[in-house]
Amino acid sequence: MSGDRLKHFGWGREGEAMTEAEEAFALRNYQQMFSVGAFDSVPVPPLAELTLRAPRLTPPASLADICSVARYDRAAHAFGKSYRDTVLGMLNDYASAPDVVAFPRHEQDISDVMDWAAGEGAMLVPFGGGSSVVGGVTADDARARKLVTLDLRAMDRLIEVDASSRAARIEAGVFGPALEAALKPHGLTLRHFPQSFEYSTLGGWIATRSGGHYASLYTHIDDFVESLRLVTPAGVVETRRLPGSGAGPSPERLFIGSEGMFGVITQAWMRVQHRPKFRTDQVVLFNDFYSAARALRAVSQAGLYPSNCRILDPQEARNTGAGDGQVAIMVLAFESADHPTDVWMARALECCADHGGIAENAADAQNSEGAASRWRTAFIRMPYTRERMVPRAIITDTFETAITWDRFEAFHAAVVEATLRGIREVTGRPGQVTCRFTHVYPDGPAPYFTFHALGRHGALLAQWQAIKTAASDALIAMGGTITHHHAVGREHRPWYDREAPPLFRDAMRAAKRALDPRAIMNPGVLIDA
Amino acid sequence: MSGDRLKHFGWGREGEAMTEAEEAFALRNYQQMFSVGAFDSVPVPPLAELTLRAPRLTPPASLADICSVARYDRAAHAFGKSYRDTVLGMLNDYASAPDVVAFPRHEQDISDVMDWAAGEGAMLVPFGGGSSVVGGVTADDARARKLVTLDLRAMDRLIEVDASSRAARIEAGVFGPALEAALKPHGLTLRHFPQSFEYSTLGGWIATRSGGHYASLYTHIDDFVESLRLVTPAGVVETRRLPGSGAGPSPERLFIGSEGMFGVITQAWMRVQHRPKFRTDQVVLFNDFYSAARALRAVSQAGLYPSNCRILDPQEARNTGAGDGQVAIMVLAFESADHPTDVWMARALECCADHGGIAENAADAQNSEGAASRWRTAFIRMPYTRERMVPRAIITDTFETAITWDRFEAFHAAVVEATLRGIREVTGRPGQVTCRFTHVYPDGPAPYFTFHALGRHGALLAQWQAIKTAASDALIAMGGTITHHHAVGREHRPWYDREAPPLFRDAMRAAKRALDPRAIMNPGVLIDA
Repeated sequence: MSGDRLKHFGWGREGEAMTEAEEAFALRNYQQMFSVGAFDSVPVPPLAELTLRAPRLTPPASLADICSVARYDRAAHAFGKSYRDTVLGMLNDYASAPDVVAFPRHEQDISDVMDWAAGEGAMLVPFGGGSSVVGGVTADDARARKLVTLDLRAMDRLIEVDASSRAARIEAGVFGPALEAALKPHGLTLRHFPQSFEYSTLGGWIATRSGGHYASLYTHIDDFVESLRLVTPAGVVETRRLPGSGAGPSPERLFIGSEGMFGVITQAWMRVQHRPKFRTDQVVLFNDFYSAARALRAVSQAGLYPSNCRILDPQEARNTGAGDGQVAIMVLAFESADHPTDVWMARALECCADHGGIAENAADAQNSEGAASRWRTAFIRMPYTRERMVPRAIITDTFETAITWDRFEAFHAAVVEATLRGIREVTGRPGQVTCRFTHVYPDGPAPYFTFHALGRHGALLAQWQAIKTAASDALIAMGGTITHHHAVGREHRPWYDREAPPLFRDAMRAAKRALDPRAIMNPGVLIDA
Repeated sequence: MSGDRLKHFGWGREGEAMTEAEEAFALRNYQQMFSVGAFDSVPVPPLAELTLRAPRLTPPASLADICSVARYDRAAHAFGKSYRDTVLGMLNDYASAPDVVAFPRHEQDISDVMDWAAGEGAMLVPFGGGSSVVGGVTADDARARKLVTLDLRAMDRLIEVDASSRAARIEAGVFGPALEAALKPHGLTLRHFPQSFEYSTLGGWIATRSGGHYASLYTHIDDFVESLRLVTPAGVVETRRLPGSGAGPSPERLFIGSEGMFGVITQAWMRVQHRPKFRTDQVVLFNDFYSAARALRAVSQAGLYPSNCRILDPQEARNTGAGDGQVAIMVLAFESADHPTDVWMARALECCADHGGIAENAADAQNSEGAASRWRTAFIRMPYTRERMVPRAIITDTFETAITWDRFEAFHAAVVEATLRGIREVTGRPGQVTCRFTHVYPDGPAPYFTFHALGRHGALLAQWQAIKTAASDALIAMGGTITHHHAVGREHRPWYDREAPPLFRDAMRAAKRALDPRAIMNPGVLIDA
């Protein structure tokens, strides 16, 4: 199993990590950013040295085959991949480790585990790939309450394909690459590629309203869910397979984004795509980020629906190797399984030119392909950074949001300033905040911020929390959302509680009582137990 | 007021009706269809002769200014515009008439009326334009329980425009034409044109998940709602204005389609459009309906997003004057505020040609424009038919649904057959069932059926109900939805109860108890009181 199994600490599978070159590049950047020569580095405890409480639960004989109390399984399910998770792992604080990890093979297994857990007064955390960066699977309550984690990986089949309707019925536990591999022989693709693609699952994407490949139009997984099934403590819910309906509030939308608080998503009919045959790519350079944003507003309001239209501010472009730090960059692409997309691209480039955007010309094409490709590589490799920087007391994290266009510039300025001020106040030295857009709508963008600060061992969690709080307070005060596609989990709860209408939360609490009367499902996400 | 006010019986304003020519055309069709010479006609009682119970409620002095117990107001709010409503009106059965009609000027008025109604043990029905064809405002319970209807027409302002984000904050009681007139000076349009456009309101559209202008992509009002406010008996809910979010289940989606069961929608930030500058229209002829459907599947899966792509079966084309009854017709259009749409149209016509579709050529352009325009006129005038045909014992109604492509042909055949059989069984003679598509998705169409039967005075309601039941049973048994955009109301309840997942309904019931603890809001729609 070793070498093929997910790490208990850090991103990806055992044996995977930053290359030496990647690490050296990152460290050089940070040395320059913080004007320091070297970084104090503390060791991360290996698996054998982790402090795990003795399991407080023994699975009944009927469930023994699908349950594990093995050290690795418990450690590997204690955390997601957030900054906080990573610090806790480094500090050997495994209080959130489950007592038992169950690997259900089918819905009956899930129901059986629910019945057993409820009888034991335990809580249940559904677990896909464990890539949550918001504490979605980090059950802090496990200090006080027994915990069973339900890992869905054994439920990973492509059950059925309806080529005529371009839809597929898929089990929730399938990881991104396996899902795409199963669809490929049918000429189909879900085209949902979050940064976590390799280490996240369909069920996780739906439970967290994951943001995907398409930078416009079909931004979230939400629109691709034709119907779904979930197992709740009160029984199974299955919605009807329909291309559209107006029969009451959408049943799917109650469960999409419910983060395991009602039950466990077990399968879904997903709207899939034909594999694209035509693709047009372009990199467009702008003098500054706001000009790029205005151009993108024009593109998004023109009804052109680019598959990619991400913009990076000059510093973010530089940090990811996509630019020189002098210009903002737009990575623009159209794709289609049906027709050439040159007309779309031509019009989008006109919108860009109206705001000073300069498309890299043919002579530079090699180079611009290089910029887009360097950015993509940096994007995919990024998650490996955290486990190497946390032990050096570097605080680096991302947060993302959405805001309407009328408020964007003031919003951006205020959020950057609040975050930089937070960094200065808690670390005593300047840091860096950069921004890109991950998705865009006719009525506003989804800005994605990255920040970097130099922390201090012994104070890391408090420092990170203070910066996160400064940033999140600004997001909410300035009218944004606490999350566009990372989800709420436990880490965003204080701000979600300010964002979500109080009476809507009352309605969700009531709905939870109906579906999960003993409050066993993922307590702490979205609403309190 | 007379001449400007809505009819208490029938469609539109007082003085409006079918023209003599329209009526003669319809009657000739029916004479031919049913092989009869003339129709027994019964009189419809005029306003002065309606049997209304004495009001069981007296508004308190503080609400007297906004309340009416006038005969006209009570009669005009007793019904929507369904077939059942029209028969009841003809039969002088006004048991569903409210005791009091309130015309709130602002949210405080609504809260005050709620408090008063709850104290009186009365129920509250929110009322927009009263164009429901599903019993959404027809409170049968009013036989047993006092009833106040809340007519939102006084809350009809365009409050605020955000041109940068292309969004507008609008009060819920505004009628379609007034809404468009208010947006026009800003160069903006909501472009939501249901058949009821003239006599329905923004709040009604949102409460019922109304289907609109766009035949693909943005089919329902749902996607245009950026945020909304509603007044519930437990207080005011306001969702945050965001272009997108992943923070828990969507709050908007709980209220969109809630048909007044949680509260009264009072305003919304709506995503609006620039007014289109470019438009391409085409009529395409097909040998048969299924070929047209297959062409439309190709168009909808090509990612072209036509604004219109409705298809009519040969008989429906003939009935609406758009065709000769020999061919199926596709009315295809692309529009844009930004760019010419010829490329989009050219590719769509290729998809049509692949399935035998013949675009009317330039020489016939006059004629094909005529077909599309005749269909539009028939579409808009259609609702005036019912009030003239019911007194002649003609049973004519529509129902609409959605189904995935893989099941469409068998579904269509089964629904048509069940409905025709129902007509034969209850009327003893053949009738007619026709079909068009109103909206289309990559994974399936939204078929819209019209049926015609010759009923018998004294048995009309039972006959209509039996045919409706035969059709609805088939819709649900064959995997469709009981409504794609007409809503559930009271008339679709038995089938909604079979369509919606039982545990989802439990969750909605629990949410309702949280927001409407005394169950005063529109009892009978979606869930029982």
